[in-house]
Amino acid sequence: METKNYCYEYPRPSVTTDCVIFGFDNGELKILLIERGIEPCKGKWAFPGGFMRENENSDECAKRELREETGLQDIFIEQLFTFADVDRDPRGRVVTIAYYALVKLTQYNIQAGDDADNAKWFPISQIPPLAFDHDRILRMAINRLRGKIRYQPLGFELLPERFTIPELQNLYETVLEIKLDRRNFRKKILATGLLIDHNESIKGQPHKGANLYSFDEGKYQQLSNTGFNFEI
Amino acid sequence: METKNYCYEYPRPSVTTDCVIFGFDNGELKILLIERGIEPCKGKWAFPGGFMRENENSDECAKRELREETGLQDIFIEQLFTFADVDRDPRGRVVTIAYYALVKLTQYNIQAGDDADNAKWFPISQIPPLAFDHDRILRMAINRLRGKIRYQPLGFELLPERFTIPELQNLYETVLEIKLDRRNFRKKILATGLLIDHNESIKGQPHKGANLYSFDEGKYQQLSNTGFNFEI
Repeated sequence: METKNYCYEYPRPSVTTDCVIFGFDNGELKILLIERGIEPCKGKWAFPGGFMRENENSDECAKRELREETGLQDIFIEQLFTFADVDRDPRGRVVTIAYYALVKLTQYNIQAGDDADNAKWFPISQIPPLAFDHDRILRMAINRLRGKIRYQPLGFELLPERFTIPELQNLYETVLEIKLDRRNFRKKILATGLLIDHNESIKGQPHKGANLYSFDEGKYQQLSNTGFNFEI
Repeated sequence: METKNYCYEYPRPSVTTDCVIFGFDNGELKILLIERGIEPCKGKWAFPGGFMRENENSDECAKRELREETGLQDIFIEQLFTFADVDRDPRGRVVTIAYYALVKLTQYNIQAGDDADNAKWFPISQIPPLAFDHDRILRMAINRLRGKIRYQPLGFELLPERFTIPELQNLYETVLEIKLDRRNFRKKILATGLLIDHNESIKGQPHKGANLYSFDEGKYQQLSNTGFNFEI
């Protein structure tokens, strides 16, 4: 039987976190979704998330749920927006603090766990019907990523540790849904001084011979403290 | 006697909204604070805010509290960030959804009301000790304003309907805490095509003879839909 031991003078909402997880794979931006194994919205797809506990803040909750439901940890994660519409959840009043995370797809195997039946990457052009108001959360997350990638080096969180400039350009073109001039992009990105050249080139296709770079995190911190603007 | 009629299986936090209100006055960026008339933190200064009701979402709550505590309505207001640290409020677990608002100071008389004793504008260089974690909320709000004013026309929300280019430059310099070149600023701002010239100049000091402009909201909407970047 249900116990209802927590009593208050005024009604209170439940608070959850939900996390939109972006990955980049073969020229496609993808989202990690969990098929809900329980009601409400059983069988629909949703972002990993769950109820915030009494002894954790929302960052801790978002990271715990991510770990429990997907096995992911130590990845870029940031608060997105809080959704508090009165009727957004059939269980009653639920406020969700939404997050977004960026994953280097090459580094992680995703596993489903907990109360989730199934975890799967979907290209953003082929998102299945989502539970609750998760379609609204997704739109907000995509807009945030598009906005921020222009002036913060978020893109590097989605690429392998070492990447070529054509790969980086491809990421920007995919996220922003625009075509960029190859020579101009190369010039701009090298002028930032944020890439470390490893004087090493890749063997395989499709960018045979292209030089490998990595992102200079320390240099970025230094520049951003003095007002640097990472503008593509 | 207190009634405790709302019982749940798991503990739930209270949810509040708080709103950081910016105004711009005589070359100073100011914040509207309320002196708390009740415990906790009685006598300290805080942002207007309060508990979210069962039948309102967080936007509605933030606007209602603003109206009740300061008389302000129909102003620019936007969600900022949600603060959910476990110990941020001595009353127990309280999650606050923070907002920020921008006010044309010339248009409003501020009144204190409700459970607040006193409402007052403070220059951001002279903020008194704040209640709860409101100093953290304030820092986040200032950073958001500084970031956004570079690529969204937020500045116009802080100026009178009609303003001169030196006034606009002064606003940008104050918010960003930098000096801008007068000729360069004028050229950039006119090149955006977002200012309507009223072919009318002000009579008084200190900018005698400077032309009056207003912001072209419709043009901005049009440009921002096609990916316009308002970069100062």
